[in-house]
Amino acid sequence: MFSVTVRDQFMVAHSFRGEVFGPAQRLHGATFVVDATFRRAYLDDDQIVVDIGRAREELGAVLAELNYRNLDDEPAFAGVNTTTEYLAKVVADRLAERARAGRLGEAARALDGIAVTLHESHVAWATYERAL
Amino acid sequence: MFSVTVRDQFMVAHSFRGEVFGPAQRLHGATFVVDATFRRAYLDDDQIVVDIGRAREELGAVLAELNYRNLDDEPAFAGVNTTTEYLAKVVADRLAERARAGRLGEAARALDGIAVTLHESHVAWATYERAL
Amino acid sequence: MFSVTVRDQFMVAHSFRGEVFGPAQRLHGATFVVDATFRRAYLDDDQIVVDIGRAREELGAVLAELNYRNLDDEPAFAGVNTTTEYLAKVVADRLAERARAGRLGEAARALDGIAVTLHESHVAWATYERAL
Amino acid sequence: MFSVTVRDQFMVAHSFRGEVFGPAQRLHGATFVVDATFRRAYLDDDQIVVDIGRAREELGAVLAELNYRNLDDEPAFAGVNTTTEYLAKVVADRLAERARAGRLGEAARALDGIAVTLHESHVAWATYERAL
Amino acid sequence: MFSVTVRDQFMVAHSFRGEVFGPAQRLHGATFVVDATFRRAYLDDDQIVVDIGRAREELGAVLAELNYRNLDDEPAFAGVNTTTEYLAKVVADRLAERARAGRLGEAARALDGIAVTLHESHVAWATYERAL
Amino acid sequence: MFSVTVRDQFMVAHSFRGEVFGPAQRLHGATFVVDATFRRAYLDDDQIVVDIGRAREELGAVLAELNYRNLDDEPAFAGVNTTTEYLAKVVADRLAERARAGRLGEAARALDGIAVTLHESHVAWATYERAL
Repeated sequence: MFSVTVRDQFMVAHSFRGEVFGPAQRLHGATFVVDATFRRAYLDDDQIVVDIGRAREELGAVLAELNYRNLDDEPAFAGVNTTTEYLAKVVADRLAERARAGRLGEAARALDGIAVTLHESHVAWATYERAL
Repeated sequence: MFSVTVRDQFMVAHSFRGEVFGPAQRLHGATFVVDATFRRAYLDDDQIVVDIGRAREELGAVLAELNYRNLDDEPAFAGVNTTTEYLAKVVADRLAERARAGRLGEAARALDGIAVTLHESHVAWATYERAL
Repeated sequence: MFSVTVRDQFMVAHSFRGEVFGPAQRLHGATFVVDATFRRAYLDDDQIVVDIGRAREELGAVLAELNYRNLDDEPAFAGVNTTTEYLAKVVADRLAERARAGRLGEAARALDGIAVTLHESHVAWATYERAL
Repeated sequence: MFSVTVRDQFMVAHSFRGEVFGPAQRLHGATFVVDATFRRAYLDDDQIVVDIGRAREELGAVLAELNYRNLDDEPAFAGVNTTTEYLAKVVADRLAERARAGRLGEAARALDGIAVTLHESHVAWATYERAL
Repeated sequence: MFSVTVRDQFMVAHSFRGEVFGPAQRLHGATFVVDATFRRAYLDDDQIVVDIGRAREELGAVLAELNYRNLDDEPAFAGVNTTTEYLAKVVADRLAERARAGRLGEAARALDGIAVTLHESHVAWATYERAL
Repeated sequence: MFSVTVRDQFMVAHSFRGEVFGPAQRLHGATFVVDATFRRAYLDDDQIVVDIGRAREELGAVLAELNYRNLDDEPAFAGVNTTTEYLAKVVADRLAERARAGRLGEAARALDGIAVTLHESHVAWATYERAL
């Protein structure tokens, strides 16, 4: 199995609801350093998993929808705790949608899966992985 | 599949028995930077894999039992080479025990697995992963 | 010249005023990974620059005053852009105050300087250094 | 499942054929920081996955065959795009060959798999994993 | 003293002349991860060292002149060994030129110095620092 | 000013004397990841600060004298706390000695200074810098 990963980042404000979150119930924020991994069983004729230029662009487009925002104000996340693990799924699902829509190129239709890791600090990160 | 990882560390002395270890047969030591990963198929209602505060505390408690010690003197490791891969299993098993005992919260009973990586330097690390 | 550095982090929301900030004028947030460096020309009799346990505690105390907050609501920062470089100075100055107040131990009175680096992502960071 | 990883690196020139590569069609180069992971279900009697000294040596030998070269001139890669994902497979396959030839020690015959990650920069890397 | 650093990268082929370089006399290549640091004694009214958006753009422009090239073919480097330390100076000097030309904004005219670090691998890097 | 840095590591056991060290008074150990920096105002005719091959070798030789040892048993450190900051000075001074003895090559006699950083974990490190 092959995979290719590209790294980018976004910066948001948000707050959490629920005692389990302690002081993180207050409005605060985070930089999320994002690793998006594209998996595929075989390389194409160019010897690539995916057009890495397009992968960067599409990841950038997905993150631009989140970057420099207060997630508490985003209708898409109304009533939901935008935890690191939840946001990893949001990014992975949005990348999957773009892959299926052909935005990563025709070859990307052969992708087997996507994994997204969001690093919230040097000591904590979360991953969501899914089939394509 | 979701996962959440927290990082911590411990510092020990130890020595190894067996020619394969070369100069590491002498009493020496290591800093182990520890990444503890908790896996789960679905998020709970708070949108989390595990209460990350508790995860940190329990990881800290497991590492405190090892930290600042000469592992050659620990009865738990008598006659055993405390290699990086072996210690990764020790930490993972002790975390699993605590998860099963409910110390990571009720929700943690839904965890599917644990993986522990011990970094012994910038150029070598070992991982042990297990089901829960 | 000797120095010792300890790393910790805090997570805040904030917004900036001024066209130069572009989309960062919106309420957003950041994780700041903090490296606090203590400099000293000579080691003390214990062969240390500073009691590293106390250094961690005092850094932790300084960051706890900022962590999980919306800096736009903090009276201390009213009318000020809490940029990464500005916050590096805030942390350094507050550490310096604690050092002078003896909270880092008597030996710490011999410190020559403090430098604080705030990493806002894997591709951007800022430092402020000052004498003590 | 256990695994042990060792890190090393090599530096090469190469060029790519195909419009998808854009400016990387020009002769350029890369440092590849290599993580070679050896997987195994059980530890041996020494409590190790593999003799890490030998693992380093064999990885070093594999990389020495590539290091400080223009891959466009290597007969082994004639007519092939030596992408990061392709080279990850080259390194993994050559390590697998050496493992099967007994160069990693007798115990290494019990290895279940090998994974090789090549980091081409701080923001892009590729992995190939295979059974043994 | 304040500083702000931004990170980017470029990938080149080159060879060295001189016995001291051993196998690096062959045509090979490198990824250079670049940290460009801008120093200034005081913050401006926006509380910044430099417009970080412009700093990124200008660094990107400087690196684009080098990226995906064989430096042996660049007239600017004819007869010169493009070592890591030499290239750090090239990048710093070109950034300094742009700062003086006003491309980093008027405020950047108050910059005191620039430092550029080029990481050639996880185990080697070089820095050049200069006044402005 | 130019500098070149190379990274290596060593692993030791040791214990500390003095209440300030708390549990680190027990015999324990550490991996020290070492960054050795060589500074020089001008490059030589090869466009280098120092022969990086020799720099690696000499750093390796200095660390080999410490690696896989219990520092409490080393006559050189009798009655001394081998703290991270103290060991940074030991490594820097031994490198300086070798530079002066010509082991880094004739060109290295033009070096202006050496700095050594020892990382004891992902959250703590110490540096010693000196003239040459």
